[in-house]
Amino acid sequence: MPLNYHDYLKLDQLLSAQKPISPDVGRKAHEELLFITVHHSYELWFKQILFELDSVLALFKAPSVSEDDMGTIVHRLERIGAILKNLITQVDILETMTPLDFLEFRDLLYPASGFQSLQFRLLENKLGLPSDIRLTYNSQPYTDQLKSEQVKTATAAESEATLFSGLQAWLERTPFLESEDFPFWQKYRTAVEDSFNKDLAEIDVNSFLTSEQKDRAREQMRATLSSFSAIFDQDFFQTERNKGHWRLSFAAIRAALLIQLYRDEPLFQQAFRLLNVAKELDGQLTQWRYRHALMAQKMLGRKVGTGGSSGSQYLKATAEKHSVFSDLFQLTSFFLPRSKLPALPPKAKRSMGFNYGDTQ
Amino acid sequence: MPLNYHDYLKLDQLLSAQKPISPDVGRKAHEELLFITVHHSYELWFKQILFELDSVLALFKAPSVSEDDMGTIVHRLERIGAILKNLITQVDILETMTPLDFLEFRDLLYPASGFQSLQFRLLENKLGLPSDIRLTYNSQPYTDQLKSEQVKTATAAESEATLFSGLQAWLERTPFLESEDFPFWQKYRTAVEDSFNKDLAEIDVNSFLTSEQKDRAREQMRATLSSFSAIFDQDFFQTERNKGHWRLSFAAIRAALLIQLYRDEPLFQQAFRLLNVAKELDGQLTQWRYRHALMAQKMLGRKVGTGGSSGSQYLKATAEKHSVFSDLFQLTSFFLPRSKLPALPPKAKRSMGFNYGDTQ
Amino acid sequence: MPLNYHDYLKLDQLLSAQKPISPDVGRKAHEELLFITVHHSYELWFKQILFELDSVLALFKAPSVSEDDMGTIVHRLERIGAILKNLITQVDILETMTPLDFLEFRDLLYPASGFQSLQFRLLENKLGLPSDIRLTYNSQPYTDQLKSEQVKTATAAESEATLFSGLQAWLERTPFLESEDFPFWQKYRTAVEDSFNKDLAEIDVNSFLTSEQKDRAREQMRATLSSFSAIFDQDFFQTERNKGHWRLSFAAIRAALLIQLYRDEPLFQQAFRLLNVAKELDGQLTQWRYRHALMAQKMLGRKVGTGGSSGSQYLKATAEKHSVFSDLFQLTSFFLPRSKLPALPPKAKRSMGFNYGDTQ
Amino acid sequence: MPLNYHDYLKLDQLLSAQKPISPDVGRKAHEELLFITVHHSYELWFKQILFELDSVLALFKAPSVSEDDMGTIVHRLERIGAILKNLITQVDILETMTPLDFLEFRDLLYPASGFQSLQFRLLENKLGLPSDIRLTYNSQPYTDQLKSEQVKTATAAESEATLFSGLQAWLERTPFLESEDFPFWQKYRTAVEDSFNKDLAEIDVNSFLTSEQKDRAREQMRATLSSFSAIFDQDFFQTERNKGHWRLSFAAIRAALLIQLYRDEPLFQQAFRLLNVAKELDGQLTQWRYRHALMAQKMLGRKVGTGGSSGSQYLKATAEKHSVFSDLFQLTSFFLPRSKLPALPPKAKRSMGFNYGDTQ
Repeated sequence: MPLNYHDYLKLDQLLSAQKPISPDVGRKAHEELLFITVHHSYELWFKQILFELDSVLALFKAPSVSEDDMGTIVHRLERIGAILKNLITQVDILETMTPLDFLEFRDLLYPASGFQSLQFRLLENKLGLPSDIRLTYNSQPYTDQLKSEQVKTATAAESEATLFSGLQAWLERTPFLESEDFPFWQKYRTAVEDSFNKDLAEIDVNSFLTSEQKDRAREQMRATLSSFSAIFDQDFFQTERNKGHWRLSFAAIRAALLIQLYRDEPLFQQAFRLLNVAKELDGQLTQWRYRHALMAQKMLGRKVGTGGSSGSQYLKATAEKHSVFSDLFQLTSFFLPRSKLPALPPKAKRSMGFNYGDTQ
Repeated sequence: MPLNYHDYLKLDQLLSAQKPISPDVGRKAHEELLFITVHHSYELWFKQILFELDSVLALFKAPSVSEDDMGTIVHRLERIGAILKNLITQVDILETMTPLDFLEFRDLLYPASGFQSLQFRLLENKLGLPSDIRLTYNSQPYTDQLKSEQVKTATAAESEATLFSGLQAWLERTPFLESEDFPFWQKYRTAVEDSFNKDLAEIDVNSFLTSEQKDRAREQMRATLSSFSAIFDQDFFQTERNKGHWRLSFAAIRAALLIQLYRDEPLFQQAFRLLNVAKELDGQLTQWRYRHALMAQKMLGRKVGTGGSSGSQYLKATAEKHSVFSDLFQLTSFFLPRSKLPALPPKAKRSMGFNYGDTQ
Repeated sequence: MPLNYHDYLKLDQLLSAQKPISPDVGRKAHEELLFITVHHSYELWFKQILFELDSVLALFKAPSVSEDDMGTIVHRLERIGAILKNLITQVDILETMTPLDFLEFRDLLYPASGFQSLQFRLLENKLGLPSDIRLTYNSQPYTDQLKSEQVKTATAAESEATLFSGLQAWLERTPFLESEDFPFWQKYRTAVEDSFNKDLAEIDVNSFLTSEQKDRAREQMRATLSSFSAIFDQDFFQTERNKGHWRLSFAAIRAALLIQLYRDEPLFQQAFRLLNVAKELDGQLTQWRYRHALMAQKMLGRKVGTGGSSGSQYLKATAEKHSVFSDLFQLTSFFLPRSKLPALPPKAKRSMGFNYGDTQ
Repeated sequence: MPLNYHDYLKLDQLLSAQKPISPDVGRKAHEELLFITVHHSYELWFKQILFELDSVLALFKAPSVSEDDMGTIVHRLERIGAILKNLITQVDILETMTPLDFLEFRDLLYPASGFQSLQFRLLENKLGLPSDIRLTYNSQPYTDQLKSEQVKTATAAESEATLFSGLQAWLERTPFLESEDFPFWQKYRTAVEDSFNKDLAEIDVNSFLTSEQKDRAREQMRATLSSFSAIFDQDFFQTERNKGHWRLSFAAIRAALLIQLYRDEPLFQQAFRLLNVAKELDGQLTQWRYRHALMAQKMLGRKVGTGGSSGSQYLKATAEKHSVFSDLFQLTSFFLPRSKLPALPPKAKRSMGFNYGDTQ
């Protein structure tokens, strides 16, 4: 028989999965279907996101990632970004449900909660949220919220390859510019110091500042300069990393810096996009959590009485803390403006171009 | 056992309904899942839209619609608007699939097509798209695209209550301002004529226009004035309506005009919102169709060879023609600016206020 | 001369107001124009928002707000909502500027900052953000950021009418349901107690809970019940208010509760929308601040060295604390589901309907 | 003096450029400011778009576009896309103005019109909209709508470099795969024919089709196959191009096809993005025009009387016809699925990789 839209999409199965429970207890609540539909939409898209993410992790698993695959990797991560963007605006729909309407069936759902979504936990784990960063909800591990048969799947994802680990390994393999002829990091350090010295000299002659303000400004600049040790001095970096200030390795951090500074070189153009989309996904999950926190606050009002933090407070806290690629955000502090960057010698520049020729 | 997110939402059933067919024929296409997920999301939301729409139609079915229900009716229709808005932006996700990717499995789907969606046809029918306006696709009735067991459901919706019929009946019951003391329509006609005469006088003294231009302008103004017969002269209106220029009844059209002109009166504030949301839904479906037409065009390229219009051309044509509330759009031509409207006499004004008092 | 688009819009003036300063110091930065354009777009829309807000405040200033104006008030506030929504998505454009690009001219802007926007401060003040809630930035009052001639305008707005004060006065005038025949608050208190007693009884027979869990649940429920004193006992409320837990008056809080519970009554339908849009504006400003905080974090990296909180941390803090209508959010805690609400006696119900009749 | 936000942004100049004219004639219309603000926002963003576009055209003007600039080019065009996307959603704000409100000052604006926007015409011209495709409005050239001093600027842009001409020249320089060892186009033609023959064979054995249906299907397939001459046979292509079916040159068309088919090769990854963003800009302008057409229709109602097409009909027609990169859309018809593409020989593949090595 010729293929039909309805059968191909298994619409009978799909559209019979929305089963409000309020009618079962004689309290038919009109808004319950909306509540279910919104969550179904979320879960469908989470499935799609996990599918794309898994395919990217598989490509990252290769001992060396083929340059042919870089377009695909970036494209699929950007698609995840497009999905997350849409899920954030979808909150607009749920917000058409008023608190009074929610009250009609809210007690029936107890103690079910969105924090029990396996797929969302898998998403966090596969991106690379480490268990020591993850916040507990009312002092309980997130796995306590899952069904017993789901726990294994969730924890397995913690130890398997993640976008974080894949990206880190790939960064560590980035061809370095360092060579005897061109000691890049030494040159970059000199450029940084020159830049600070110039700024210090400008403070001296700044007639708007009192001498006290000048002292404070100088002190701050020296502190900033000293913070650059993180990218010049592996031991310093390692100490900071041990304190939890960094997650990526020294080699990966340096590669990420390089890629962003020299993003115009053909070899780094796609790599730059990859770093960007990693930051974008992180930022979108943060927005998603925050937007849901605001909605929960509006829907549920003030949490009264004993018993730990509210869902809304927890969500806000995860928006702040559950960042996977925070290293990439703070790396920005170690940029120099383009005009102050060490120029690449022709040999280095050529090795980052195409075989075909660097122009067409 | 305590209720759990996973079981409450029947996620096993929901998340096992996505079954790509490309692996079955040994041509696993990565992008097929996205194609399915997008359509699943559409169908879930169509179900939700139909649910809200049905509930509104039920409220409209009462011999007189309770004023207590007006807030609910408007609110639910606005929710449908919020859903449609989100479905339009969701096209962004599907557009991350490139034509080359689609080509990997496009032939496997033949002859299945989105035009076979029962729920979308129900949506059109329940809004009130009449069968004589509906375009045929390749000269075939839309029901030819449906499964045989779906045809009855779809055609039943054509003859049952629709948003159009409900709105029309409700408009026809709108309390009219007309009374012996206050012959509203006569006053409105006078106001219209005064306004045109003033404009005609201004043409006479306009020194920028040549006498030829003045003639043309006068001719055009007289044509416009004469078109106002549609709201003053029932016979004229009926003739136009018989030609297909109007769909609503004379009484409904007049009420819709009144509500929009005097929307500030308490009695008309919610009614005005109702007319607005009806126009909004119409406009959003138009946008949805057009956006899909553009996507189809991008995805499929130029339709080659024999055999009727392409899907993209059909979609563009429906964007233009499948308007349910076009009457409300063209009614705008018969507005006068507020400053020229007949003032309501105190008695009329009071009858449109609250029992409680017209101020607080 | 006939009016022309270019002259009507004063485009010469408008389009010559973008003056990048990077070329003046010989460091032409391509991205500076984008930076200026984004801020120009913000300031244009802030002006529009203030214009709409001022017009609403003027309508609220009347000793009694005419019911004829309620549609206009709600409509204009909703327009502000539409503008804010667009300003939030506009951040997407600014985010196309990379941190490296910003670095090209960032130092030239010092110490200018978005915190110096007079119009944004006016917006906060006119909404009703009280000075005792407002956070200081690096221990300095916000007025220190303004030009001296702007300070007066900004502080004047603190003491003039605000949306908060206008809404409060209007709420205080809301017709109460209370009468000798129908002692509403006594009935509501009884309904609340009945509801809690029923829940307590259910705990007793719940076989999933240990006796310790039951004790904890009972304790929490009693705490929640006792919190309802806020709406029943004016002295209790006043004590909480003095501690900063509430900002609106007792009468206004009660009216806001009533309107939300009985929002279907014609008299309350538009009032309900008004409360909703107030919450919406509050929520959108919160999102706007948070989204900017994330962007600042991405753009500027980790703030290093001495000298107070970063702009990004300040923005996040204001997202949390600068809520004007937080009372309306927490009021949700005192709702009962519709099915448990005291039924309105016919007399009360009629007084909330239209003169014309309560059905059509 | 230290730089200040207000002075840096020339806010006095910016915020004094909104001058409603309705108060001047004693008919102060509240909504006129919104009308002005929306158009100011458009013009500001048009200026930004033109600035980005001009910078891209300058980069394209080089005799050979440096591969180092490809990231910048794509990035700036994607920024234009982000701006256009926002301008489309901005229509939501204007739609909060009702037709009745517009009527208050609409006549005062006559004959000024958005069709007089110089910057929008420049945008069309710089993208490469050719004058022979451009529709006339009421039989008049678009330049008749401009101020006399603007005409020269607008028409100059017609004959200068455009995104279309820059892209075409760049495509024509794309390294071809064709070589004696690897006669690509011959191989592609064979692959296409094999694919069609396979499909024809499947029709023969398809038991769902009547013999009449089979004849029709075969006829259609042969027509499709014959249409492929456009990419194989330069004379055929030229004939079609002379009829207006194509705008790009034969060489450019072939390069665009190649880039899309082999987009995973490092050399083509950025090139593929460039083609994509060209299509995206085209599509977004189409959406922008259509959305405005719908708004005009809603705002103005039915055009009555004599005198040519309405603005809304004109906008709809331009949405359909003012496509600059339609060639790229129809090229999709000549794709083969990846699995059927001729495999690249190692030498060709290597020349499209990086000097550094094809993996990392």
